[in-house]
Amino acid sequence: MTSHAPVTSLDGLVRAVLEHTAGGPLPKVAIARSAEGHVLQAGVEAFERGVAEPILIGDIDETKRIAEAGNLDISAFRTIEMTDDQQAVDEAVRLFREGEAQFIMKGLVSTAQLLKGVLNKKTGVPNPGSILSHVAAFESPVDGRLMLITDPGVNIAPSMQRKAEILKNSLDVARKLGMTRPKAAILAATEKINYPAMPATLDGDILTKMSRQGEFGDAEVLGPLSLDLAMSREVAACKRFDNPVAGCADILVTPNIEAGNILYKALSTLCGRTMAAVVVGSQVPVVVPSRGDTDASKFHSIALASLLAQRSQ
Amino acid sequence: MTSHAPVTSLDGLVRAVLEHTAGGPLPKVAIARSAEGHVLQAGVEAFERGVAEPILIGDIDETKRIAEAGNLDISAFRTIEMTDDQQAVDEAVRLFREGEAQFIMKGLVSTAQLLKGVLNKKTGVPNPGSILSHVAAFESPVDGRLMLITDPGVNIAPSMQRKAEILKNSLDVARKLGMTRPKAAILAATEKINYPAMPATLDGDILTKMSRQGEFGDAEVLGPLSLDLAMSREVAACKRFDNPVAGCADILVTPNIEAGNILYKALSTLCGRTMAAVVVGSQVPVVVPSRGDTDASKFHSIALASLLAQRSQ
Repeated sequence: MTSHAPVTSLDGLVRAVLEHTAGGPLPKVAIARSAEGHVLQAGVEAFERGVAEPILIGDIDETKRIAEAGNLDISAFRTIEMTDDQQAVDEAVRLFREGEAQFIMKGLVSTAQLLKGVLNKKTGVPNPGSILSHVAAFESPVDGRLMLITDPGVNIAPSMQRKAEILKNSLDVARKLGMTRPKAAILAATEKINYPAMPATLDGDILTKMSRQGEFGDAEVLGPLSLDLAMSREVAACKRFDNPVAGCADILVTPNIEAGNILYKALSTLCGRTMAAVVVGSQVPVVVPSRGDTDASKFHSIALASLLAQRSQ
Repeated sequence: MTSHAPVTSLDGLVRAVLEHTAGGPLPKVAIARSAEGHVLQAGVEAFERGVAEPILIGDIDETKRIAEAGNLDISAFRTIEMTDDQQAVDEAVRLFREGEAQFIMKGLVSTAQLLKGVLNKKTGVPNPGSILSHVAAFESPVDGRLMLITDPGVNIAPSMQRKAEILKNSLDVARKLGMTRPKAAILAATEKINYPAMPATLDGDILTKMSRQGEFGDAEVLGPLSLDLAMSREVAACKRFDNPVAGCADILVTPNIEAGNILYKALSTLCGRTMAAVVVGSQVPVVVPSRGDTDASKFHSIALASLLAQRSQ
């Protein structure tokens, strides 16, 4: 894989997309289905700021009405009439498979249906041996560094094996963001192995050992680790934790969906961080915005998916 | 139970303790074992600010050396020479049982040993039918309200039944803080029941129904709820969630220790919130500071335990 200059902020993420594009055609995002105000708004912003060009799949009359009501100019976008959810999903995947779109965004269809279409063995674009997982980029409230969290939204109670796949997916994203030797913290409630009471602590230890054996390539993996130790050099120093990952993690791997979702919401709602999130693990980056996400979050999610698409070619 | 004027901030918590004391004798905190610099410092600050008077149990020569090195005046405190961990724990519990101390604080002994001593059926002070749980008070980063989180540190993977007990303990704390009809959010990764994939969502639903049947007394309980919906009126309005708890929770009940611990650390390390934490559920409030806690956190934890002790009499 080519190595890239490190992306160190969300602004830097947008700049990196623009550098790739450099006046050429924009990466295209297939939106299934498009008749939704917030999604349209994010698509228009992405287009105007030069990070992606939407292809609208859905009820096009209704899409136009919503755009007009929201004062959104969608006249430049390709449109494909498709009012059935399944057909809209299949069309979005087909556009990617045939090189007409570079990534996909969820509109009015359900997340489950969209991801099922992506993973379909006949018509989809799965990555053999990989699983889908959710990765979000944000700027650390502690020291401003660009960091990743996974998995706040797709895998519910991952086994150690699935955590290894989730970790691999996030390391791939980190490398595409230019982190040359990404540092991942496998989070738990404590640094001590406590098995069988706390399986997350054993998972952290095993993943650390797998990493030392080279399982994850050029990376530093450390677990089990609590959140403060992963993020704060001050706490790491206070607890006398001397390891390249302690206080300096690039990636936070959460033990289960509740912990992941709560950390995601703590970062967005409590810390006011913009979260750029994408579902990775198949051949196509998928943007799955949720209602509670801010407009900035939806726009930066498109930018992240766009960069990942550019750097997957 | 007598109703109290609502405590709405950590400063208000300290003022409430001072009002109770009103120039009379301070609540006494038995520290097992005392030869630890940060614990001694918190004890001295608690004494100087009038929220509690330490009784030092431990290696007293060593305790004095540490106090001297840290420039801490412990000359006014009662001391009890006890260098064995088990004996120090038993002595602290005995002091409470016999009315010589009003609450207990962990010094150099292990949390497990301390809590075991508290729960001992012969020599301890368990509450029949209750379990121990960890509760922390903090000021919301969203709107400044005083809120509680439970359980970030004691119960690992509580069943629905144990969550009901954890909830009861936190409601008791909320009422002692003057919240007349406390509002509790049972957190999960989503608002939809998803069983058996996500047991936390079903637990939330069952606890909500139990509350409607009066199981938890004068309280509002709502679950499953995601963190942003529990804490932010703006998100609750955006998601059209119309319920007294949505956006206005007083208590956040986390689904497991990983989620609880990560939320606690997000509040303390990422949001810079002071956490006042105490272990409740027995007859005696127990302060169990952890290394990563700030001095302010240790002091306010003592103040919280002191108030709970005063309002349990």
